[in-house]
Amino acid sequence: MNSPILLIDSPDEKGLIHTITGVIFRHNHNIIRNDEYVDHETGMFFMRTEIEGDCETEGLIAELTHDLPEGAHARFAPKQKRKIVILVTKEHHCLGDLLIRNAFNEFNAEILAVIGNHETLKPLTERFDIPFHFIPNAGLNKQEHEAKIRDVIAPYKPEYIVLAKYMRILSPEFIADYPARIINIHHSFLPAFAGASPYRQAFERGVKIIGATAHFVTEELDEGPILAQSVIPVDHNNSVNDMILAGRDVEKNVLAKALRLVFEERVFLCGKRVVIFD
Amino acid sequence: MNSPILLIDSPDEKGLIHTITGVIFRHNHNIIRNDEYVDHETGMFFMRTEIEGDCETEGLIAELTHDLPEGAHARFAPKQKRKIVILVTKEHHCLGDLLIRNAFNEFNAEILAVIGNHETLKPLTERFDIPFHFIPNAGLNKQEHEAKIRDVIAPYKPEYIVLAKYMRILSPEFIADYPARIINIHHSFLPAFAGASPYRQAFERGVKIIGATAHFVTEELDEGPILAQSVIPVDHNNSVNDMILAGRDVEKNVLAKALRLVFEERVFLCGKRVVIFD
Amino acid sequence: MNSPILLIDSPDEKGLIHTITGVIFRHNHNIIRNDEYVDHETGMFFMRTEIEGDCETEGLIAELTHDLPEGAHARFAPKQKRKIVILVTKEHHCLGDLLIRNAFNEFNAEILAVIGNHETLKPLTERFDIPFHFIPNAGLNKQEHEAKIRDVIAPYKPEYIVLAKYMRILSPEFIADYPARIINIHHSFLPAFAGASPYRQAFERGVKIIGATAHFVTEELDEGPILAQSVIPVDHNNSVNDMILAGRDVEKNVLAKALRLVFEERVFLCGKRVVIFD
Amino acid sequence: MNSPILLIDSPDEKGLIHTITGVIFRHNHNIIRNDEYVDHETGMFFMRTEIEGDCETEGLIAELTHDLPEGAHARFAPKQKRKIVILVTKEHHCLGDLLIRNAFNEFNAEILAVIGNHETLKPLTERFDIPFHFIPNAGLNKQEHEAKIRDVIAPYKPEYIVLAKYMRILSPEFIADYPARIINIHHSFLPAFAGASPYRQAFERGVKIIGATAHFVTEELDEGPILAQSVIPVDHNNSVNDMILAGRDVEKNVLAKALRLVFEERVFLCGKRVVIFD
Repeated sequence: MNSPILLIDSPDEKGLIHTITGVIFRHNHNIIRNDEYVDHETGMFFMRTEIEGDCETEGLIAELTHDLPEGAHARFAPKQKRKIVILVTKEHHCLGDLLIRNAFNEFNAEILAVIGNHETLKPLTERFDIPFHFIPNAGLNKQEHEAKIRDVIAPYKPEYIVLAKYMRILSPEFIADYPARIINIHHSFLPAFAGASPYRQAFERGVKIIGATAHFVTEELDEGPILAQSVIPVDHNNSVNDMILAGRDVEKNVLAKALRLVFEERVFLCGKRVVIFD
Repeated sequence: MNSPILLIDSPDEKGLIHTITGVIFRHNHNIIRNDEYVDHETGMFFMRTEIEGDCETEGLIAELTHDLPEGAHARFAPKQKRKIVILVTKEHHCLGDLLIRNAFNEFNAEILAVIGNHETLKPLTERFDIPFHFIPNAGLNKQEHEAKIRDVIAPYKPEYIVLAKYMRILSPEFIADYPARIINIHHSFLPAFAGASPYRQAFERGVKIIGATAHFVTEELDEGPILAQSVIPVDHNNSVNDMILAGRDVEKNVLAKALRLVFEERVFLCGKRVVIFD
Repeated sequence: MNSPILLIDSPDEKGLIHTITGVIFRHNHNIIRNDEYVDHETGMFFMRTEIEGDCETEGLIAELTHDLPEGAHARFAPKQKRKIVILVTKEHHCLGDLLIRNAFNEFNAEILAVIGNHETLKPLTERFDIPFHFIPNAGLNKQEHEAKIRDVIAPYKPEYIVLAKYMRILSPEFIADYPARIINIHHSFLPAFAGASPYRQAFERGVKIIGATAHFVTEELDEGPILAQSVIPVDHNNSVNDMILAGRDVEKNVLAKALRLVFEERVFLCGKRVVIFD
Repeated sequence: MNSPILLIDSPDEKGLIHTITGVIFRHNHNIIRNDEYVDHETGMFFMRTEIEGDCETEGLIAELTHDLPEGAHARFAPKQKRKIVILVTKEHHCLGDLLIRNAFNEFNAEILAVIGNHETLKPLTERFDIPFHFIPNAGLNKQEHEAKIRDVIAPYKPEYIVLAKYMRILSPEFIADYPARIINIHHSFLPAFAGASPYRQAFERGVKIIGATAHFVTEELDEGPILAQSVIPVDHNNSVNDMILAGRDVEKNVLAKALRLVFEERVFLCGKRVVIFD
């Protein structure tokens, strides 16, 4: 993540790549890797360009903004790590995995704090010298509980909120404040088994494969754009509990993959879907 | 498939395996492979036993029937190949795969006939010297159309009906005549994207994995016990049409796997699920 | 495969994409999809561009050839289907799969003939009205046998030779005549279990996963650039014969995938590896 | 893991299951789950039986030992968790994963200590209040270094040694002291890319899939019985370093799976292979 990364989305038009690469060429930059995609449903063009060496970004963006069609956006990925806050309930596996990655600089993000509506994961979090905020929801309505969460989050100014098995549904108001900036892990292969108890549902339906889905959170529950999915086989020997245990590894891996993609600026929103340059 | 295969389902009780293996031992048979399963939800016991060499089956079944609890069933898998009739519409890939397997004795079944509500697959079927019956549904209601299909099927006396991309929904009456003997391939990872146009649905939802599901057909559409599932990854570069093409290979493989399991008597019905000894 | 597809490989240099897209833009063409790759080991640049609508290809190639660095190659993918000849021995599954695909225009190729050193697959081939040439190797040395094969192949002028479970090793002389134009399916996950009896080797080693590999054939046995690989799980219940049977589906799928990639001009040779734009 | 688990290996003979289940039945126990396997290469029989409720194990084993053929072994899995010592070098991902699992009782083992030939992973280990022993190998020959490791290990009396990316080769003498009790994770899909730098080898060979293998350690390097394997796809965009990073998740999952299987007594040695009842 040391190379400057140029990110462009634009209404598609003839000559767009030529225009963009012309600006880069006139600024005397070499392209290490370039990915483009034209979405034929929306008519949008997406491009992610890794540039060699240092790069005077402001002038380049100004020139691009001048040359690109109306409605286009050009920006460079920020050099510093993404700042994130993690919300959890009681399950440790996703949080544990992220804390290890954070401790060893394994992803392009920095965990500023962990917030739990239960206290269960406080000791784990504090083993890694990350602040843990216990904000119980008992006796509070959603609005009151979220107000407290917002107050705790505010000073951290996170760029992303990660729901690492946070088992409560966020309000539309909360979600609206972080558009395409809240990432959730759902413990099923969406759209199969949305909602509660997906492993119980999977067991009863007798499926032969279970999975997990990481997605951006939108107002519609379990309907946000999908970032990553993975699956594992199961059979009749697997009880609901076996599925829950086996699913943990899938969940943590899928969440970690989604975060890597987002934090390395490999993801573009495109309607209700995403374009991923991996 | 040359060894005698003993198949038992029974209400579970203490000492069941001892009882069964005692009968086998007293008849002086050696067990090559033995699989058992106790379903703790239904309290049912299932056992599949491959026996070495020849086996005087009648006496053994009689003795087992005497010794096993009420409600138990013991039978030997038939030695001859399963007789099947295949229903199709226009898509060739599953039928083509089954015709090749049939021609080279690749599965424990014999295709007696193919019935299509379109004529598209007649030439392919006839290349393999299998009778093809064209039974168009145009101008007929479901009852009338199925009556014609039944008339064609009747003389073949098939043990199984295989829906190899047959794109019409069978009536409950038709299905009731073949309990756990109609096998369908659905072109999605059920229960995701049940119903029509699953690849279009998958594209619009932006899933990262698509799949196919083979299942026994029951009255409830796409709700029968699942026999086999498989998946492949997709990304934003894949159009609906790309998914349809890529899905073909998954569909034909999953259907072939399900048929192998059923025809090798590896499948036991257990409520709305199946137990598979593979 | 109706869009013109421009294929370029070139020593990498600054401004290359800008140069190429400039030529396309000046010819007033719209790019539907564009993929590029710079190989940092060899310093080579690869680009595959799908262009909308018709395209006056000759002028465009001339201009590109003028503008690109020395050592660059620019060409359009041929519009007509690739002409192929298939070599087989006794196993039917890959050939059967390709014959079905050929009959239903499922890939961008036309099977001109099948050549077998055994007669086993003659009936299958002829069911599809494709000529089958039986060229036994008994009593012939490799040179003599290959001379006969060459004589049969010559009038077909195939662009690709597909080894669909052809169990003999071709001579370096034969291979040299078809550089990167002979595609083989090997029944293991290369480089594991190169050489003979890979399933026997896999069984004895107790691996938990088996696979298949499609690759370009080079002089070094099982060492050519890998085009596609796939795997399936196995366990202690699987005998060598079970693995052989289960492996068939993997083999035919992997070969079909590799052929699709090559015949859709998605593959660039890059030293001993390939770049694939899929 | 609360049910008593009976583990039997024996030369196969007619009536064996009947004999064993007879002893269980006479002791008035109910079988919850039973798995058997006859290995036709070695003529050995393996059985793993989960028994409901408590179980007077001594009498049962005595009776079984009396009734079973010579060469048979019958034992109950120990009720207490397996005691393990982990050896590491510098890479954190497998150790981190195991420490999290240990902290949350996610597997049937207890980590007594971690030993490193580098000091890198001391802080991580100590975050979880597990003793870390730094035993550098600099200036020591293998014998001297291992003598020091043995001295540290001795008081812990571990049942298993786990090599969690320990990058040194153990001597045959060391290995002989822990037969089928040292478990290693190798960062390739064995037998492909045994030895050093498997990801570099995989990159150069241009494989489309990379993997990891957990195995018992024997005197022959990377040749011990395989316990678990898993793979992930790669393409030309993946550098050696990308593969190393992506491989980490596979490695830690495969090691965790192998340990689960071993610690839940699901693994039987059978020549150079294992039988796994999962």
